[in-house]
Amino acid sequence: VTGTLPARTLRLRVAYDGTGLVGWQRQAEGTSVQGLLEEALGRLAGAAVTVHGAGRTDAGVHASGQVASVTLSVRIDASTVRRALNATLPPAVRVLEVTDAPRSFHARYSARSKTYEYRMVNGPVAPPAALPTCWHVPYALDVAAMMGEAAALVGEHDFSSFRSTGGAMGSAVRRVLESSVGSYDLRSLAASPQLAPVARIEPARLLVYTVRGTGFLRHMVRAIVGTLVDVGAGRRPRGTIARLLAAAASRDEAGATAPPQGLCLAAVEYDDPGEVAAHR
Amino acid sequence: VTGTLPARTLRLRVAYDGTGLVGWQRQAEGTSVQGLLEEALGRLAGAAVTVHGAGRTDAGVHASGQVASVTLSVRIDASTVRRALNATLPPAVRVLEVTDAPRSFHARYSARSKTYEYRMVNGPVAPPAALPTCWHVPYALDVAAMMGEAAALVGEHDFSSFRSTGGAMGSAVRRVLESSVGSYDLRSLAASPQLAPVARIEPARLLVYTVRGTGFLRHMVRAIVGTLVDVGAGRRPRGTIARLLAAAASRDEAGATAPPQGLCLAAVEYDDPGEVAAHR
Repeated sequence: VTGTLPARTLRLRVAYDGTGLVGWQRQAEGTSVQGLLEEALGRLAGAAVTVHGAGRTDAGVHASGQVASVTLSVRIDASTVRRALNATLPPAVRVLEVTDAPRSFHARYSARSKTYEYRMVNGPVAPPAALPTCWHVPYALDVAAMMGEAAALVGEHDFSSFRSTGGAMGSAVRRVLESSVGSYDLRSLAASPQLAPVARIEPARLLVYTVRGTGFLRHMVRAIVGTLVDVGAGRRPRGTIARLLAAAASRDEAGATAPPQGLCLAAVEYDDPGEVAAHR
Repeated sequence: VTGTLPARTLRLRVAYDGTGLVGWQRQAEGTSVQGLLEEALGRLAGAAVTVHGAGRTDAGVHASGQVASVTLSVRIDASTVRRALNATLPPAVRVLEVTDAPRSFHARYSARSKTYEYRMVNGPVAPPAALPTCWHVPYALDVAAMMGEAAALVGEHDFSSFRSTGGAMGSAVRRVLESSVGSYDLRSLAASPQLAPVARIEPARLLVYTVRGTGFLRHMVRAIVGTLVDVGAGRRPRGTIARLLAAAASRDEAGATAPPQGLCLAAVEYDDPGEVAAHR
């Protein structure tokens, strides 16, 4: 039997260090995650392929749980695809998992929600090991105030105040399902399992802003973080987020866009985990 | 009163990302931590100074708790010295703490012991965020066997089997006070405070080898780790470490030297913490 191979849809879970990448999306210049995956998968398939990502992360933004989908014809099983991809991709981009998915699966359109994390190191001295994945905020922050502001984002709102002025101009209404700030004492973490040399370093603390939502506007998470830090630093009053959401004001009303290296696409959630056949 | 300033001895706690550095010690070529600190401190003192480090870490090796001492004449207080240094040093080198110390304090000769940590990511896929601080070991490891081998290092031994052949040839007898392997499931860590995007990534686990000792030979920790991994992988039998210590054999009897980026000088211990005046 030498008939043509049937087309399959694969679902990939992908992690990357965004440093030095132009982001998820293919660009005229520079290295993109999409471009790297399309090249590597195209070689496996012997034909050009299009890879769709759940989140179009910007230049310098990381991912620990990006999800991508691709439809192609290859004979090898999903876990062999993973090994073949990792053998050719640069170490900064890793395919964590490949599974067969229904033909209708589309990483972006099938997604129910996405979870982003934004990390800050808050203290006079930033541990060198934290710099690639954190924003260093050296001044004092009122974390309780930031937690209160973060909570105000939960629900369906018009996020015009947090929309990049350069982006497309469709509806700015999005639903945020979870929005919280966690504060971790790096000294206490040092005694527990050490993930990185970061943990032993004082006198900084780690702040992690976690936001899960049905969709995000361009730069929305980083604009939210910039505003949270403004409130934490006392440059804006408590209630700023609620006011900006109610006003659906223009982008320049909110805080500055926080730098990209603190942002990480942590997970993408889908309706039915059972819909993905376990072909590992 | 315009007399000359009295000389003071300062104690510095220093963290650095060793990537791209030639190590602690000043070299004819390349950027060293000692060289950077001497330059920055010399500018403050208006005179050439010599900085002594507790551990002479090799090229590519990191530190989260290196300790250095310097004797110099400056009028500013210790915490201002810290701020001034961090304002001129590259972000990869951070001074965490500066305190006034007794004139007799010497970072290396006063040290009672040093603690090194060696990190490995064990699993088929290495999370990109872990690469700068971990050795990626893709094959299966018997961690229980490695734990047993590590425990055999505690005590006073002749470490000739673990001594770099290029190093000086004094006594190879050293005392190891603590030697253990910790294994952490990255999946379970993902639910707890996230230090880095590393945590969410499967199917790898984090192995941390921690060793505290009164002194270390050149490349000793990395040679130990290479041997531990050999036993974990089944390439050498259990009991290898005890046999090598008893034989005090030549370096080529032990395992290969593990790569530098997994190693981190985590702490230096001194006799009397009270001896350091708290001048922060």
